Formats: sequence, structure tokens, C-alpha cells
Amino acid sequence: MTSMRGTVLYGPGDIRFEDLETPKIIEPTDVIIQISVTCVCGSDLWPYRGLEPFNGPTPMGHEYCGIVEDVGSAVQSVKPGQFVIGSFATSDNVCPNCQYGYQSSCTHREFITRAQAPLLRVPLADGTLVSTPDMPSDALLPSLLATSDVLGTGWFAADAANVKPGATVVVVGDGAVGLLGVLSAKQMGAERIIAMSRHDKRQQLAREFGATDIVSERGDEGVARILEMTKGVGADSVLECVGTQQSMMQAIQSTRRGGYVSYVGVPHEVELNGQELFYAHVHLHGGPAPVRRYLPMLIDLVLDRKIDPGKVFDLTLPLERVAEAYKAMDDRTAIKALLRP
Amino acid sequence: MTSMRGTVLYGPGDIRFEDLETPKIIEPTDVIIQISVTCVCGSDLWPYRGLEPFNGPTPMGHEYCGIVEDVGSAVQSVKPGQFVIGSFATSDNVCPNCQYGYQSSCTHREFITRAQAPLLRVPLADGTLVSTPDMPSDALLPSLLATSDVLGTGWFAADAANVKPGATVVVVGDGAVGLLGVLSAKQMGAERIIAMSRHDKRQQLAREFGATDIVSERGDEGVARILEMTKGVGADSVLECVGTQQSMMQAIQSTRRGGYVSYVGVPHEVELNGQELFYAHVHLHGGPAPVRRYLPMLIDLVLDRKIDPGKVFDLTLPLERVAEAYKAMDDRTAIKALLRP
Repeated sequence: MTSMRGTVLYGPGDIRFEDLETPKIIEPTDVIIQISVTCVCGSDLWPYRGLEPFNGPTPMGHEYCGIVEDVGSAVQSVKPGQFVIGSFATSDNVCPNCQYGYQSSCTHREFITRAQAPLLRVPLADGTLVSTPDMPSDALLPSLLATSDVLGTGWFAADAANVKPGATVVVVGDGAVGLLGVLSAKQMGAERIIAMSRHDKRQQLAREFGATDIVSERGDEGVARILEMTKGVGADSVLECVGTQQSMMQAIQSTRRGGYVSYVGVPHEVELNGQELFYAHVHLHGGPAPVRRYLPMLIDLVLDRKIDPGKVFDLTLPLERVAEAYKAMDDRTAIKALLRP
Repeated sequence: MTSMRGTVLYGPGDIRFEDLETPKIIEPTDVIIQISVTCVCGSDLWPYRGLEPFNGPTPMGHEYCGIVEDVGSAVQSVKPGQFVIGSFATSDNVCPNCQYGYQSSCTHREFITRAQAPLLRVPLADGTLVSTPDMPSDALLPSLLATSDVLGTGWFAADAANVKPGATVVVVGDGAVGLLGVLSAKQMGAERIIAMSRHDKRQQLAREFGATDIVSERGDEGVARILEMTKGVGADSVLECVGTQQSMMQAIQSTRRGGYVSYVGVPHEVELNGQELFYAHVHLHGGPAPVRRYLPMLIDLVLDRKIDPGKVFDLTLPLERVAEAYKAMDDRTAIKALLRP
């Protein structure tokens, strides 16, 4: 076939499922994947809501797993028929940035798009994709898909915030990444995990993932509540999983002196005042999550049934109804929507 | 005596040595020190240059060491006649922030001022001061004085930038703190230490302290030079020891992905753009240096003659000529001026 149907954003609120060129091998390092499941990301909502500059119709989607259909001549690590998962950022996995564990800043990085479609071209396949030993059961697909971005990003948030056994952790943001930041902090041995959320369903999932406390206040009131809960000291580790000025300042002000703040959502119109940051005395680390660093380990945790990150998908739709998926997430009636081609 | 002469800033460029009230014990936790040597700090130059809001005549000085003259009734750890050194920030050394090693954010912190005088009141003496086992020789006084701020701050800069054995380190700023950041990085085992400086005398001292390379370019050109020297990757650790927007961005852009940036000078009109910081993928940590954390160890290094940080003092004046000391540092004819009461 020379055309297939995929997801294109035409402007704020305007998602269409329409004819697109079928992806094919361009570079010898490419792979074509038949998508098993894909989904809508919280970050897709920024342009959907008109909160990012719009440069014309944009094919969407960057979370994916599926079966290798075709491989370029230079691809060595995967072959047709294998089940693979990759990060939203491609990586050669050999450049210095990759070797330091920052594959999402690979010198050859491209950001995946067009994954909300039945077929996807993945560049730099050897350095980007991780295959499973066997074909996973259908029941595991949501959790495996989660490793591709939201779990990998939540894990990076916890790692970058230096979560250690016994730590008091605050998670700002109750989207899928924040909820999986809770799960990650729990896996890393945090003793107290405070999830900031004002939505019943998300609060409940946060508790299932390991949250010990829920705080529904925001901004200055949220900070005051965290300080009250930590005897005025602040938390050891705070995961900022939103990307706004308010959430960033809330995270910084909720952290104890010498504590750690991570931020993993692309900051939108965020400016940090040097003196405020200076006197806050926190460690700050973040950026696009180097999901590839964690993928093999996270896939193992899923295959061994030690974690069930797929619970963040509370809506499943056929891919052709992708517009409904966006709307449900925009309305916050769904936490995260799974799409089946 | 009821009055003594001390240093007061009356406005930009206007330093006077004039009658001040003799300090006396106010709180039972206070100590009065007879100052052996004191000095002018790079941070004193901000208000001297009119680059900070001015709220009327201000007694100056926050670096000090000397002999205990009088102690409050609650003081237990030091007694009259002992030689002591303290940080520019007082600390009780028992509050949670202190226990985490962030004594410069002690919940009872006060910033020392009035140290450019013959006598100084130090609050929270038990948690702020460290005494030496014996009366140090006169030759050691400059190096001991350096531990009080500039060495402790340079050490924190290296520590906060995670300097490790074998690391490539860049130091932005060739003031006393930057130069002692070089010394600290050397002590921590850095393999390559690149000092950014365009002044012969400072370059020479940087080399004496352990710098392996000197870069005289600044801003974008400085960044380009560092990238060229690190095969396009950037440095592992970058110490920002200036506090301006340009130096901060220069530091961030000179760091490799996943590398560490520290900043230890009070930022003046610095705003960090969230997205730039996000994609730079660096760790960021700084704030007022918790000198008290390092003081016992640094004093030992000085007493054991393992380091000679006092070399940063290239001008010695009697205290009453303090105005000349400010002028020499402002003109950059002196790196740092030592004052003897």
C-alpha cells in the first residue's frame, strides 16, 4: 500500500485521522514497525490547546511499541517479526552524550512523530529500539507501551530528584508521568510519597502506585501544606511533572535546603529568578528523559510483573477515533488514552 | 573603650573608616573576637560599585579570624584566648538545614557584617566558630582567613559541581573564589582544570593552584573555545564564580549533557529560561556556600601545609587604609586585599 491513515493536528482542538504516505526505509539504519498500541501524551496537549507556536498540519504521536516489519541494510540488533519498544527520542547510543546516559541528547537525536498510525519509521534503530525475548501477551501491551515515554520519564524524574530509600518525596502533577513518578519513587524505596492532586480517580491511582499522602492544595497553599507536613523543612526530593511557572516554583519551594528538584515536562514560559534559586539552595536537574537508558530495566520489570504502569491507561479506543482520545484527555475525563490500530 | 573605628560604606565608591560602637555581648550565645586579620570580598564590590540597592550607611566585612575576647554565658565550645575562624553566615549547627550540611541556610542564620574592624560580635558562636588547637603562626593567618569565605566558597563550588577524580573542570571567574575553586578542584582530583581569565597575574596564580589550561575568551566565544577543547562535548563540571547572566549562561553552555554546574556568587539580575535549561540537560546546584560544613577539614589542610589559599592576598594594608583596599580590588590591581587592624 502507498497510503495509510494516521493522526494529524490541524490546529487547536482539530485532530484528524487521514491519509498519510506509508513510511518506508530511507536510511540504512531505519526500521519500519507495525504499531501494536500507541497513545496520546500529555505533551501532545500543549499544541492541541494552542499553547505552542503552530507551523501548519503536524503528524502526531511519539509513544510506540510493535512488531518489526522491515529493516534497513545496516540494522543489526533487530529483525522482522521481533517485538520492539523505543524511546520518543532516537539515539545512536554510542556518541559521548549517549555514553554518559543522556540518549535523549544524542548528537544524532531526532524526536519521533507520526506514531499515532499503523506503521512507523524509526531512525537509528540499533541505538533506539529494545526488543523483548518473546512475543508479549496482549495483556502486557499497555505496560510495555508505558515504558516508551511516560514510565521512562517518571523514572527519570525520580532518578534526577535523587530519590533514595527512606526519602520523603513530593510529586507535582497528576498526569501519567506524575503518577508513574510515584510508582518509580516507590520502587526506589521512598518512605513517604506525597502526590499533589485534586482529582479522585488520579488520587486513587497514585495511592495504588505507592503514594502515602495526597495534597490537593496548589501554589503557595500547596507549598505551605508540604512545609507543614515536613515540620517546616521541606521534602528531600520533588518531582516537577507539569512544566509551568507555578508548578516549577511550587516544586522548588517545597524542597528542603540541599534537596533535589527534577523537572521533566518541557517548560512553557518558565523563567527562574537567579536569586530565588540561589537562596532556595536546591539541586535542580531535568530535561528530556533519557528513556533509552532505563528501557531494558523497565521492560524487565514489566515482563516480570513487578510493576503495572499500564494502569495509567483508563480509556482504550480504536486508533481511528484518536480525536476522541485527545478530547477526553483535554477534558481530563481520561488520564491517558490507549489507541489500537 | 566604648568606641572603635570600623569600615562603613556611605555610597558607591565611598568607604570610610570611622567611629563605631564597640561590639559587646548581646545574646548569651555571642562571642566577641579580637580580629587578627580581615579582608575585602568580591561581593563587597557589588554595593561599592552601586550595583545593589543602597539603604544608607552600611558597616562592612564578613571574613574574619581572631582571638576570643569575651564569651556569652551560654557559650560552651570556645573560651577567651582561643584562636577561632567562622563563616560569613552564622549557624546553630543543630537545626535540620544544618544537619543536612546547609549551615548557610540555618533557620537561625544571620549574615555577618562589621568584620572590617578590630572587634567583632559573632552570634551563635558554638555553631559558627571553629577553634584551632594552638595559636597559629602569623605566616598562616592569610590562609586561615581564606577558609572563612573564599576558600570555603570555592570548595563548595567544586563540590556542588560534583568534581571527581579524572574530571574535566571549567572555572568561570578569576576572582579569589574562582581561583580557589581551581585549588579545590585540584584537591578533588580533577585531571583537567580550565581557568577562564584574561589577567596575567590571575592566570599565573590559577596555574599555581592547579589549572592545566587558560581560556581568555568570554561569552559565546568562551563557550566555543571550551567545546573545541572537549571535542564538542563540554566539561563534566563547571564552576560559575561571578554571578551575572553572561557568566551563568557561559557556564551552562560549557557543560556536557548530564554534567554539573555550580554557582556560588549571589546572582545579580539573572533569569534562567526554563527551556534553555531543560535542553542543556545539566545538573544545577548552588547558593550561599555552607562554609561551616567544610571549615574543620579546610583548617586542617591549612595547618598541615597541604594547601596555601592565602596566596590570593596580593595586597596587605593596615585596616585604617581599607578604602584603598576597596579601590585596588575595584580597579583589579589587586586580587584580594588583606587588612591588619
